[in-house]
Amino acid sequence: MTERSLHGGDPSMLRRLNAAATLRELRDGGESTLSGLASRVGLSRPTTEGVLGELIGRGLVAEVAPRPGSGLGRPARRYRFRAEAGHALGIDIEADRVRLLVADLTGEVVGGHRAPLDLHGRPAGRIAAVRGAVKECLAAAGIGRRSLRAVSAGTPGVVGPDGTVTRCAVVPGWEGVDLARDLGRSFPCPVLVENDANLAAVAERWRGAARAADDVVCVLAGLHTGAGAIIGGRLHRGRWGAAGEIGMLPELGLLDTTALLVTGAGPGSGASGAALAGLASAGPALDDADRVLAAAGRGEPAALAAVDRLAARMARGVAAIALALDPEMIVIGGPLAGAGASLVAALRRHVPPLCLSPVRIEASGLGDEAVALGAVRLALDRIDEDLFRVGPAPGATAPVER
Amino acid sequence: MTERSLHGGDPSMLRRLNAAATLRELRDGGESTLSGLASRVGLSRPTTEGVLGELIGRGLVAEVAPRPGSGLGRPARRYRFRAEAGHALGIDIEADRVRLLVADLTGEVVGGHRAPLDLHGRPAGRIAAVRGAVKECLAAAGIGRRSLRAVSAGTPGVVGPDGTVTRCAVVPGWEGVDLARDLGRSFPCPVLVENDANLAAVAERWRGAARAADDVVCVLAGLHTGAGAIIGGRLHRGRWGAAGEIGMLPELGLLDTTALLVTGAGPGSGASGAALAGLASAGPALDDADRVLAAAGRGEPAALAAVDRLAARMARGVAAIALALDPEMIVIGGPLAGAGASLVAALRRHVPPLCLSPVRIEASGLGDEAVALGAVRLALDRIDEDLFRVGPAPGATAPVER
Repeated sequence: MTERSLHGGDPSMLRRLNAAATLRELRDGGESTLSGLASRVGLSRPTTEGVLGELIGRGLVAEVAPRPGSGLGRPARRYRFRAEAGHALGIDIEADRVRLLVADLTGEVVGGHRAPLDLHGRPAGRIAAVRGAVKECLAAAGIGRRSLRAVSAGTPGVVGPDGTVTRCAVVPGWEGVDLARDLGRSFPCPVLVENDANLAAVAERWRGAARAADDVVCVLAGLHTGAGAIIGGRLHRGRWGAAGEIGMLPELGLLDTTALLVTGAGPGSGASGAALAGLASAGPALDDADRVLAAAGRGEPAALAAVDRLAARMARGVAAIALALDPEMIVIGGPLAGAGASLVAALRRHVPPLCLSPVRIEASGLGDEAVALGAVRLALDRIDEDLFRVGPAPGATAPVER
Repeated sequence: MTERSLHGGDPSMLRRLNAAATLRELRDGGESTLSGLASRVGLSRPTTEGVLGELIGRGLVAEVAPRPGSGLGRPARRYRFRAEAGHALGIDIEADRVRLLVADLTGEVVGGHRAPLDLHGRPAGRIAAVRGAVKECLAAAGIGRRSLRAVSAGTPGVVGPDGTVTRCAVVPGWEGVDLARDLGRSFPCPVLVENDANLAAVAERWRGAARAADDVVCVLAGLHTGAGAIIGGRLHRGRWGAAGEIGMLPELGLLDTTALLVTGAGPGSGASGAALAGLASAGPALDDADRVLAAAGRGEPAALAAVDRLAARMARGVAAIALALDPEMIVIGGPLAGAGASLVAALRRHVPPLCLSPVRIEASGLGDEAVALGAVRLALDRIDEDLFRVGPAPGATAPVER
């Protein structure tokens, strides 16, 4: 930050700084009188008045009814952030279902919806089903599509920098789908696409188990098991969007996790696997895994043994992540973590002996909404970029910086 | 950056900003006249003159002989950054040797030294030997100890946040040594301690193969193989300093790498292992590994096969790192990479099939000085913090920030 970048160049920079600081103060600090706001932001009354006029004109601030006067004179006018001035939509496009959450500009969730998806349907059909779910979600919440300022969608697999699904093992035909473009046609605002485990990590840091942490890994235990990492407070996507795909190494035990759980496959299966046959149907679907986990929750020995075997195998992969990143915390989420504490408890036994430093393993408390909630947060971050931008808009000539 | 943080509070902030900007311009942009400098930094002549007076008083700037006048009037005075005003010392404390590099404040290396260490000696003896090497290094370079403004030391193993070696598999007795404290006694300046692979990553980004990259992993292939990562342009240490120790999982093939190379152990050894017996002596020391690598460099089939087997095993670990972080580049350094291109070439064959995204694998070009060079860079960063600090000194009351 040199003298030049403070005082040179752009004469409207200070006005934008003032508007951003005032807006942020109203949003985060709550409604206020003009003089209270001026004092909180550190601006003069006339400057604050001008800024408020601009923000009211942009629809971001509203005057509210004054409080009853406490004595002489008319009561002071009050202002508030218009949380309803726009909305963020988060979409979790899972293998066989879609979940949506919509939030206002303060991040308060004001609506949601879920619908099944045909795992074996063609991409166009899946995307049409997602569009239908969006329509129902917005209608039920009474929110117009024009009110959306950003949309973010999560999907299993690797999402390239351009929003294309470049790799996806769990959804047939999903590889190569340009999800950002295909979904983008439905919305009048930016559409972001992100790996589901990455979004779960974002959600855990926003409203979940990792609120105080800057270095967090979220392991999403599902059909396959992926991971997302927040490093230094920022989502780490990797050069090709493929960070966290450590589960691709078969010896790390994160592939086919539900199959392992249901069939009891893996080292030392055999008898216990046979004992589980009554619980499991033909395919290694999540429903079957849920049944095993529920049985483990009831304390049934064969199911507990199956969960323990799964944890012992997954522990190699979780430990590999812990050894690579040494995060403050590893949060276990996803369908297999959601159905009870048994998997997390078993990982707490199996992971630490493989690690060099103390490993903190926590269960997600966000249930099956973690990915959609992380998508909402990502969309809100995108909106904040616009709301609080003080530099020139993207595409404008950059100021001279040293 | 709100109005308050720009204009509130600290009246000397602007002076410090001006001094920092002027010093940086002189250091990075080269010597200059007063008016040239004023124009480059964007300050008035009188302000620049005042700032230069202060910097000359601190010994950081000197007036240089004016260039011969080109015509009328006396030639303009010129100023330069005094690179010799201080020095940064980098120390690489390896298992059986210590390497030192000393640089001036622009990072130009002005001296170096190396000495053997007794791998099986007690920690006190090893540290005494390091101290002796420092003395010789400084004497040979003609640099007084008082000129050192920061020292940084690299070591194998995990270095805790306080500078203690908390884990170390390759140096007997080294665990538990409080290296920052023990070395700190020898120096009148800050002493930093860091894992060696982390420093190698720093060096590769500074002056090595990764100059353009913000997300880099450096794999240091030696007695064991460790890794260091730069993520988002910053060294990622991890919560307990243990990031990059993914090689601790035996199935990832990064343990006992030299032993593997020399004995030809691992999957499918046998006959080839026997063929190598003539090359290898009893212990799996680096010298033996060097001989195998040299033989591979000469194209000897048994040695080439041994290198290929080693690469096939190491590839699991390198791929695990690539899958976890999806970095822009993986740089292979360390003793096993230094002795020829054969290991890197073999890794380029074995790693990509295990990965989801294109992996760029580069050989370090820094030879066996990478760790010491990274230590110099870390020390320079520490010095820069002091030189260019514009906020209050650590420990002072923080300004009100929103």
